[in-house]
Amino acid sequence: MSELVLPVYEDVVAAAQRIAGHANRTPVMTSRTVNEEFGADVFFKCENYQRMGAFKFRGAMNALAQFTPEQKKAGVVAFSSGNHAQAIALSARLLGIPAAIVMPEDAPAAKIAATREYGGKVILYNRYTEDRQQIGKDLANKYGLTLIPPYDHPHVIAGQGTAAKELFDEVGELDALFVCLGGGGLISGCALAARHLSPSCKVYGVEPEAGNDAQQSLRRRQIVRIDTPKTIADGAQTTFLGDYTFQMICQNVDDIFTATDEALIDSMKFFAERMKMVVEPTGCLGFAAARGMKESLRGKRIGIIISGGNVDISRYAEYLAGPR
Amino acid sequence: MSELVLPVYEDVVAAAQRIAGHANRTPVMTSRTVNEEFGADVFFKCENYQRMGAFKFRGAMNALAQFTPEQKKAGVVAFSSGNHAQAIALSARLLGIPAAIVMPEDAPAAKIAATREYGGKVILYNRYTEDRQQIGKDLANKYGLTLIPPYDHPHVIAGQGTAAKELFDEVGELDALFVCLGGGGLISGCALAARHLSPSCKVYGVEPEAGNDAQQSLRRRQIVRIDTPKTIADGAQTTFLGDYTFQMICQNVDDIFTATDEALIDSMKFFAERMKMVVEPTGCLGFAAARGMKESLRGKRIGIIISGGNVDISRYAEYLAGPR
Repeated sequence: MSELVLPVYEDVVAAAQRIAGHANRTPVMTSRTVNEEFGADVFFKCENYQRMGAFKFRGAMNALAQFTPEQKKAGVVAFSSGNHAQAIALSARLLGIPAAIVMPEDAPAAKIAATREYGGKVILYNRYTEDRQQIGKDLANKYGLTLIPPYDHPHVIAGQGTAAKELFDEVGELDALFVCLGGGGLISGCALAARHLSPSCKVYGVEPEAGNDAQQSLRRRQIVRIDTPKTIADGAQTTFLGDYTFQMICQNVDDIFTATDEALIDSMKFFAERMKMVVEPTGCLGFAAARGMKESLRGKRIGIIISGGNVDISRYAEYLAGPR
Repeated sequence: MSELVLPVYEDVVAAAQRIAGHANRTPVMTSRTVNEEFGADVFFKCENYQRMGAFKFRGAMNALAQFTPEQKKAGVVAFSSGNHAQAIALSARLLGIPAAIVMPEDAPAAKIAATREYGGKVILYNRYTEDRQQIGKDLANKYGLTLIPPYDHPHVIAGQGTAAKELFDEVGELDALFVCLGGGGLISGCALAARHLSPSCKVYGVEPEAGNDAQQSLRRRQIVRIDTPKTIADGAQTTFLGDYTFQMICQNVDDIFTATDEALIDSMKFFAERMKMVVEPTGCLGFAAARGMKESLRGKRIGIIISGGNVDISRYAEYLAGPR
């Protein structure tokens, strides 16, 4: 592996300036019920109230805002069936950049429609017979488009770090920060902010129990690849860390925990009932893990990043309707 | 009807000081999607993020905080199966006042449990064979308790008005304010704040279509009584206005509109999908009515009060799952 130039805290600061005016400064919510249950002060950074409903907008906007005039004119390409697609489409529209989004033809119609609504040109492919990476590369080569990956990119990582920067700026230092973990872009950026703004804060990643590749990778100090995990946390179904995110997690993350789908559903119900918030399954990872170890958190100041709120509403209804 | 001394704007200001530190200053949320759909600036005052999940805490706390030492020692009694019960129980606990809440024995177990959790002594009655007013009065007489009604009380009304005061303080003057309307406590207080802080602002009440007693009362200038309406807006199933609220609505409210249950469900889904907020059916009244007349609101600055987010989670799941 060649020597990568990893982003540093100053890149997070620059990202914050770059996305200001475009991204929402999302609210930090607290709950007396949670604080009583934990015997601790718990601060939720609510990226479900970010534009397009997830933190992904931060990284996408930070990456696109750094395009050269030539790159801007030619356009951006991304492949994603999830929040990254919408984040790139919306950021590109706001900056007047053409965007091509490669999505599987069996992606939920609502997601395809939302991406088009944001102004993205959607290129559908058959996920069983075609290779989306190849399609993306071919488009990039043929039309001179710049490919922006969903997490393994220094500008994307620095952008995501602004979420934690805002949290620390608002509430001060913390004893522990829980961050949901898929490809590792969010936690890589947030850990940079934590190291600088709250040096003694423990930074914990949380993965779905069914897909703990990052936990294994951190413990073995090498990137571990797994099969696509079966979990309702669709934003964390990644099967291996990126080169940037693996190195940054090894440097800055204290530990990685897991949460079961059952615990995610319990947390989703809690957020709806007690905090009146819609949180997508992936967004529940941090709270679910923290709840499972609350005895060790007594008397502490805890940050939890809620990554997003984009969940198909009929599926969400099923989660809420299920047995407790 | 004897001459009532109606609350004035100064009572709202005093209430704001009295409840500060106890009540949340709830967020004002906006949505680019809504603003584009309306061609207007729409500000949502989110009382679903108030303590115990509804604006009712404001009025209850303002009333109890004005008890004499003797009243505080003897205690408070309220009858309610809804948000008022929890508001009184929680306010009383915070002020160290004993609270007796008269609730029907077939009320949802979760609501009875929540009221007890807040420290209220729950007195159950049979709603088919017993008269809750008589039980309340008997308790008041026997133990010297002070009865606080859910809306027709000047201290309760002044307390509810702090919601609109906060909204105007934060966003400035508005062209129109939409307020959900059951017994009329919220709109009576909010209209007082509007008249003072934004004199040219139209104030509109919104009732369930199935129970438009206030609309009829305003038009006929006399209190009209109706049968208990069949609607999912359980916070607005009141059958007639109070003496205070009727007079204040006649003085300060410009018009009263209605919304169908279908429109409430559409709004509930919209809040969940696009704004990631859990809103109870009654809390959707203002938005549902405003949406139905959005052509007339183009280019204007609109305030909408979301009254609360307390909805049984399995019932909420059914609303979200239903056909669009």
